[in-house]
Amino acid sequence: MTIKISIDCMGGDHGPSVTIPAVISFLKQHADAELVLVGLEDVLRAELKKHHAEAHPRLSIVHASEQVTMDDPLEVALRRKKDSSMRVAIEQVKDGKTQACVSAGNTGALMAVARYVLKTMTGVDRPAICSIMPNQKGGPTYMLDLGANVDCEPHHLHQFAIMGSVMVSAMENIPRPTLGLLNVGTEDIKGNDVVKATSKLLQADHERGALNFYGNVEGNDIFKGTTDIVVCDGFVGNVTLKAVEGVARFFADTVKSEFTRNPLTMLGALIGRGALNNVKKRLSPSRYNGASLLGLRGLVFKSHGGADAYSFEWAIKRAYDAAKNDVLPHISTLISELMPRNAEVPEAPASK
Amino acid sequence: MTIKISIDCMGGDHGPSVTIPAVISFLKQHADAELVLVGLEDVLRAELKKHHAEAHPRLSIVHASEQVTMDDPLEVALRRKKDSSMRVAIEQVKDGKTQACVSAGNTGALMAVARYVLKTMTGVDRPAICSIMPNQKGGPTYMLDLGANVDCEPHHLHQFAIMGSVMVSAMENIPRPTLGLLNVGTEDIKGNDVVKATSKLLQADHERGALNFYGNVEGNDIFKGTTDIVVCDGFVGNVTLKAVEGVARFFADTVKSEFTRNPLTMLGALIGRGALNNVKKRLSPSRYNGASLLGLRGLVFKSHGGADAYSFEWAIKRAYDAAKNDVLPHISTLISELMPRNAEVPEAPASK
Repeated sequence: MTIKISIDCMGGDHGPSVTIPAVISFLKQHADAELVLVGLEDVLRAELKKHHAEAHPRLSIVHASEQVTMDDPLEVALRRKKDSSMRVAIEQVKDGKTQACVSAGNTGALMAVARYVLKTMTGVDRPAICSIMPNQKGGPTYMLDLGANVDCEPHHLHQFAIMGSVMVSAMENIPRPTLGLLNVGTEDIKGNDVVKATSKLLQADHERGALNFYGNVEGNDIFKGTTDIVVCDGFVGNVTLKAVEGVARFFADTVKSEFTRNPLTMLGALIGRGALNNVKKRLSPSRYNGASLLGLRGLVFKSHGGADAYSFEWAIKRAYDAAKNDVLPHISTLISELMPRNAEVPEAPASK
Repeated sequence: MTIKISIDCMGGDHGPSVTIPAVISFLKQHADAELVLVGLEDVLRAELKKHHAEAHPRLSIVHASEQVTMDDPLEVALRRKKDSSMRVAIEQVKDGKTQACVSAGNTGALMAVARYVLKTMTGVDRPAICSIMPNQKGGPTYMLDLGANVDCEPHHLHQFAIMGSVMVSAMENIPRPTLGLLNVGTEDIKGNDVVKATSKLLQADHERGALNFYGNVEGNDIFKGTTDIVVCDGFVGNVTLKAVEGVARFFADTVKSEFTRNPLTMLGALIGRGALNNVKKRLSPSRYNGASLLGLRGLVFKSHGGADAYSFEWAIKRAYDAAKNDVLPHISTLISELMPRNAEVPEAPASK
């Protein structure tokens, strides 16, 4: 079956100079993929021509006359730029022309436009941003919410947990992925009021076999790979994600400056370049690009604004994987199975 | 002037085998310091003997018959173990025998016992945990709260901001240190309700010249060194701190495993060992050991439980610096100056 994905080619800091090479490279690797490129037709054609890909049989162009900039307020993205590449790419999903879309546009605008165009899934109060981080077990740790919801109630975190579980299950082919609740300690008594109440909801789901709740996890567990999924509110998730990116950049810069300090260290770097390249490969955020906006009636993936072509290609790959693994119907089915049940007060089983 | 510090020698994962070598090394570096070692007298004497330091003129021992373990619940530390090395070390501060104390015991117990013995400073509702992180400018970023208060109101964050500012001012000799409020974006409209309300309080202090409020900062700003101080609630601070520690460990392990992969990479590491050692030195959490419990009527410093002697010595050094720089009277003065003013609704200046 062909997987069709629409690409907001104008989004991000670099626009077509990054998105077009990524698109071409992606198509080479995925024979069953078709991409719909959205943006200023002339600009896209010119960029494709540069790469001798104007007549690619699995590429098509949909013109959109406007662009959402990284600084545009939500209102502008939502109400004024109705023919933006971002919005048109999302509309392709809504109209069933593509199964997912990818944009490197600004997160707030993307979430707002996606919610407006696609609507929220039944049973979900608020969509969340879910991304992956590398862990020491060699796998990815899925984490949500990473910034869509800065004030959360327990039932929001509960919904994130369900969506995240289904996502991991479908994307990683893990039948019962483990779920951790981000907290300041592992003991039950730890945490703020929202987290404590959430823990009870998740524990109840665990007991009825609906979720595989591990319990509380701490910040370092994200990278240990203690659980497949880590759930938190968008404030904590966003701050943590950015702090981790900051420390990773600090680390990378320090390694670079120390290894270029003098001829001897440069020789060491030259001889050990295999090791340094592997470190870069294993830890590079580029490979973990592509956050999903979960809880919408359509698949929307967000690339880092500053992504290069290699990194943007990873975001397309995530969207492709999600479409191929039917993530959306899986979430929808399980939300509708679990959420009504969760809404009811579970009755004690009749003692005969 | 002599600086006297009491040391809980029994705390942490390793007890005297770590604390005693740290103490001896510290005294060599600081001719004006006197240390009071608290713990089981026999054990401490035996350990000192090993290091030929039994008769050190600037060392004394105060016997304490009990120890707070890393797993002891607060109640046990607080009500049952009244002769613990942790408590006796803190009592030395209370009784004016020492100017600060250091413990590697469990954080919750240390905070509870310290609050009970020393009491909270006038004008401070809740003490906070303040520590430093390295930043790309080469300086430390002070951050608080790192876990003492998981549910915070704006006036709590406001107090943390004042305490942090005074701390940095005294410790780093910066007259008007810059203060950032940890948030999910830099714009004023960003954040949850607590953060938005806190921002207004800090802005008001900034306008009247009481604090040097920079505005909102994001997770990566901690490591960029955008501001001297970063303020957040204890939930966010604790999760962020542990996530950063986790990613740093992941990074260090990855570098190690890649450079020991084969003879060539090992040669690279050998030749580039100067660079690798410098990376380790610049980023090692050991050098940033020693969190202060701010807002008490006495200086208490907390070392990581798993600290080695080198790292524990850094915690002693922080306590020494804080005592030497009169951090406590500075905080006390400024809190009493600022907090009553803050409590009043500032009147609009009469228009002539």
